[in-house]
Amino acid sequence: MEKVEKNNELMEKIVSLAKRRGFIFQSSEIYGGINGFWDYGPYGTQLKKAVEKVWWNYMVERRLNVEGLDSTVICHPQVWNASGHLDKFGDMMTDCKECKARHRVDLMEDENVCPNCGSSDLTEPREFNLMMKTFVGPVFDEDHVAYLRAETCQPIFVDFHQVRVATRQKLPFGIAQIGKAFRNEINPRNFTFRSREFTQMEMEFFCREEESMDWYNFWRDERLKYYYEILGFEKDTLRTHDHDQLAHYAKAAMDIEFKFPFGWGELEGIHHRGTWDMSRHSEFSKQNLEYVDHDNGGEKVMPTVVETSVGADRTILALLCNCYDEDMAETQKTGKASDVRVVFRFPAAIAPVQVAILPLSKKLSTEAQKVYDKLAKYFRAELDVTGSIGKRYRRQDEIGTPYCVTFDFDSLEDNAVTVRDRDTMEQERVEIKDLMHYFFGKLDY
Amino acid sequence: MEKVEKNNELMEKIVSLAKRRGFIFQSSEIYGGINGFWDYGPYGTQLKKAVEKVWWNYMVERRLNVEGLDSTVICHPQVWNASGHLDKFGDMMTDCKECKARHRVDLMEDENVCPNCGSSDLTEPREFNLMMKTFVGPVFDEDHVAYLRAETCQPIFVDFHQVRVATRQKLPFGIAQIGKAFRNEINPRNFTFRSREFTQMEMEFFCREEESMDWYNFWRDERLKYYYEILGFEKDTLRTHDHDQLAHYAKAAMDIEFKFPFGWGELEGIHHRGTWDMSRHSEFSKQNLEYVDHDNGGEKVMPTVVETSVGADRTILALLCNCYDEDMAETQKTGKASDVRVVFRFPAAIAPVQVAILPLSKKLSTEAQKVYDKLAKYFRAELDVTGSIGKRYRRQDEIGTPYCVTFDFDSLEDNAVTVRDRDTMEQERVEIKDLMHYFFGKLDY
Repeated sequence: MEKVEKNNELMEKIVSLAKRRGFIFQSSEIYGGINGFWDYGPYGTQLKKAVEKVWWNYMVERRLNVEGLDSTVICHPQVWNASGHLDKFGDMMTDCKECKARHRVDLMEDENVCPNCGSSDLTEPREFNLMMKTFVGPVFDEDHVAYLRAETCQPIFVDFHQVRVATRQKLPFGIAQIGKAFRNEINPRNFTFRSREFTQMEMEFFCREEESMDWYNFWRDERLKYYYEILGFEKDTLRTHDHDQLAHYAKAAMDIEFKFPFGWGELEGIHHRGTWDMSRHSEFSKQNLEYVDHDNGGEKVMPTVVETSVGADRTILALLCNCYDEDMAETQKTGKASDVRVVFRFPAAIAPVQVAILPLSKKLSTEAQKVYDKLAKYFRAELDVTGSIGKRYRRQDEIGTPYCVTFDFDSLEDNAVTVRDRDTMEQERVEIKDLMHYFFGKLDY
Repeated sequence: MEKVEKNNELMEKIVSLAKRRGFIFQSSEIYGGINGFWDYGPYGTQLKKAVEKVWWNYMVERRLNVEGLDSTVICHPQVWNASGHLDKFGDMMTDCKECKARHRVDLMEDENVCPNCGSSDLTEPREFNLMMKTFVGPVFDEDHVAYLRAETCQPIFVDFHQVRVATRQKLPFGIAQIGKAFRNEINPRNFTFRSREFTQMEMEFFCREEESMDWYNFWRDERLKYYYEILGFEKDTLRTHDHDQLAHYAKAAMDIEFKFPFGWGELEGIHHRGTWDMSRHSEFSKQNLEYVDHDNGGEKVMPTVVETSVGADRTILALLCNCYDEDMAETQKTGKASDVRVVFRFPAAIAPVQVAILPLSKKLSTEAQKVYDKLAKYFRAELDVTGSIGKRYRRQDEIGTPYCVTFDFDSLEDNAVTVRDRDTMEQERVEIKDLMHYFFGKLDY
C-alpha cells in the first residue's frame, strides 16, 4: 500500500474524483461557473460538517476555558476601520491604459509591460482592497456601505465583553467561531486552496501579556496534536514555519503548513497578536475594552491575544490529499490497470459515510434497511443496493467508508452481519444487536 | 407550572434574558450595533448548532432519499435572473424630493405625504430590490456585480444534476442545505424574526408531477411531526395557513405559523413549486435540466419540486418563546417575587448545555472535572463551580439545562453522583461509571 506520489497528477486525480463522487464541484457550473467559488456536494458536505464538528468539540466543547460564538458575516463597517482592513488589505494592481486590463503587479513577469497586449502604458500601481463591499439599508451610497467579513476573528474581539459577562469567564480564556469569510482574491487558484468564499475556524485566546508566550506554545502544541492524533496526518506532511517578519505588536507568529501536491501551503496560522486588536477596537469604539480583574484589586488589563486560525476548506483539501491512496495489490495479480483500488483513508471519525450497509441481494433490501435505520440515527450511514458486492466495495473505498456491513441470506437466520474493514480488509461477523456498541467503539476519536 | 402569558412583556423578558445569558445579542454592539444583524453568544451558538444538527439528521441523514449540499453564498448572477429575484423581489419605495428620505409605501399611513417632513412632493413608487449586491473580480462595474443569495434553494436547483449523477439517485429524491441568506429588509423587526442576515434550512424534493401532491402532503405531515415530536411544540402554538393566492405554476402552498408573543408568524413554508425553477434554469443556462428516466425507456421528465423551507433563527426564537417558563411554586411559599424560578424547558436533545456538573464544594472541583471530561466528549456539558448549589441550579434552569449532576463528598466514597431533573425536580443517585449510558438514553430524540 505504497502512497502515490504527491504531484500534479495526484492533484488532477483528486479534483476529478472530488467532482465525480460529489465531494466538491464548481459553483454555478451550468452557468459556466464563477471563478473562486466551490460547492460541496453530498459527500463533501458530510465531510465538511464532520471536520467542523471535530474541531468544535476539540477546541470548544471539551474545554472549560473556551466559549463559542456565531456572529454575522456583515458587521458595522467601523470594525474594518479599526482592524486596519480598509486601509491595508490588498494587492498592488496596475491598469493597462491601452487594453484596459488590470493586473496584479507581483504576478507580472515584467512590471513595465502589460502581459495582455504588451503596451508599456500602465498606471502607477495602486492597492486593490480585497474586502467585498455591499450596501445595507434603503440607499446605495457611501453612508450605507458595509463589508463581508474578511476573517471571522474581528467579531470575536468586538463581542469579547458580551461573551465574558454572559459566561463569567476570567482571564485567561478563549472565544472560538466557525463561519464564512470572503476575499475578492484577484487570482483564485489551486482548487479550493485559494478561493473567494471560504469557511474559517478561529479561536482567539485572551490572556495577560506576561503569560502570552506560554499560551502561544501551548496552543501550537495542541494544534499539532490535533493534526497528528485526530486528523491522522503523517509526520512528513506537516511542517511549522516561523514568520520571517513580525508585525510591530506581535511577539511570535507561525504557520502550520501541509505538503500539498502543488507545494507547501498554509493550513493554519498561530499568531501572537499582542494587545493590538483590543486596543484598536477600544480606540475606534470609544469603549474601554480592558478587563477588570476583581480577583486582583480591580486591576485593569488590556488582554493580549493568541490566535489559532485555520481554513475548513484547506483542512478538507489537505485531508483529501493525505488520505488518497491507490492500492495496487490486485493489479499486481491481474496486470490490469482498471484493478487499481482507489481509497480515501479518512479517519473513521470524519469519513463522510462511516458505515455502508450492503444487502447481498436486492431481496434482502427491506431487512438490510432495518439495520440502516438503526445506525443512521447515530452514524453517517448509507444503504447501497446496486451492483455486485465487489463493485459496491470499490465505490465505498472511493468515498472513504471505513466499514462496510454485508447483509446476506445467513443474516436472516443468525441475526448477524459481516463487517469489512477498509484498511485491513479483514472481515468479522457481528450480531446485529451488538452493532451499535461495536461502532461506538470504532467511530470515536 | 402555569405558562406565562405570551405577550409583549414576555418578548421583553426573552430579549433581555437572551442578551444577559449570552444567547443572542446585537451585532457590533460596541459600535452602536447594525440594524437587522444579530450575533449568537456561547449558549445561543450551542443551541443553534443543535437545532441545525437535529434538522439535518431528521431531514437528511436518516433518509435514503435526501442528499445534502453546501453551496456558496455568492453564485453566478444569472442564477438570480432565472429565479426572478432580480426582476421582482422587493418592496415599493418612494423618495421625498423635499427632505430626500426614502419610505416603504405599504408602511406609510398616507401614501401622498412624507412621514418625515410632511411634504407631498414624492417620487412615483418604485420597486426596491432586497438582494444584496457586491462585486467579484478586479473591476467594480456592472459586469462584475454578484449577489448574496436571498435564499438557499436556488443553488440546489442549479446543482441538481451534479448531485444526482454523483449519488445515482433516481426520482423522487430531495436535496437539502443549511446556510446563510441575506435580504436588505427595509424594516427589520421583532428581534431576530425579520433580520437581514439569517440561516435557512431548506429541502427541495424532486418528483414527477403526477405524484407531487402526495409528496406535498407527505412533507407537510413530516414537518409537523418534527415540530411536535422532536422540538416539543405544544399543539396550540402552531397552525397551518394555506396561501390565499398561488403562483401560476404552483398547485399548493402553505405556511406553518408559530404563535409568537407579537402574533402569529411564519416559521416554515411548504411550497409546491411545479416545474418552474427547473424550467427557468434550463432556459437561462441553456442546459436541458430534464431527468432522463432510464427505468422507463429513457423518458424525459422535468422534475416538479416540493419545498420545505424554514429559518433556523425563527426556529430558535420560537423555541425560546415556547420553552420560557416561570415556576411560581417557591414565590407562593415565600411571597417574594425574586423567588420566581425562570426556566427554559428546552427538549434535552437541543438544550445548549445538556449536563451541568456541580461540585458541592470547590475542594471537589478536580474530581468533578473528571466527570466533566468524560461527558464533554459526547454531550454539551459545563462545569459550574461558583456560588451556592441553589444559585447554580437557578442559573442552569435559566439556560435550560435538563440535568444537573451534583458531585458531593459522598461521591468520593460511593463513586456516585446526584442527578437532578430540571422539570420533575426529582433527584436520583447514579454511579459515575453508568453516567454515559444513563445520559445516552435521556439525551436522545
